[in-house]
Amino acid sequence: MPLYQARVLVSLRPSVLDPAGEATRAAASRLGVTGLQTLRIGKAIELQLEAPDRATALSQLEHLSDRLLANPVIEDWQLEILDPAQGQQA
Amino acid sequence: MPLYQARVLVSLRPSVLDPAGEATRAAASRLGVTGLQTLRIGKAIELQLEAPDRATALSQLEHLSDRLLANPVIEDWQLEILDPAQGQQA
Repeated sequence: MPLYQARVLVSLRPSVLDPAGEATRAAASRLGVTGLQTLRIGKAIELQLEAPDRATALSQLEHLSDRLLANPVIEDWQLEILDPAQGQQA
Repeated sequence: MPLYQARVLVSLRPSVLDPAGEATRAAASRLGVTGLQTLRIGKAIELQLEAPDRATALSQLEHLSDRLLANPVIEDWQLEILDPAQGQQA
């Protein structure tokens, strides 16, 4: 079975505070970077999934993203999936 | 000054164990997804940086990634930067 490479980006919903991101943003000025307007920290989950075809891989990855990888109450997610023989998708 | 949108992806180096990722991978089979070969959890940091030009933005973001956002001993990072007037970069 082909092996699909995928990335799931999980980010806090815009209405949810991100104290770790805010602390990191404040620390940047101590490194001399003063133009930082916003900084928010999310998760990037890299997966390799064996599936019979792309549609099955996509459906399984969406299921995982919704149920396991992100908490839909406070987080959004987006999925990037690659075809097996291709380079990294946009 | 233009506002640059950027994303820094921070991932554990391949030689570093990822127990949280491994636990998540194991949990996927309880959701009926059995083809998951690898799953590793990294960070996706979304930033907005005001800078006079793209080269300055890039240099400041590289500095931040190396010194603040990632721990180069155990983590790799990659930077995606957008020009102010464009859509999301590949």
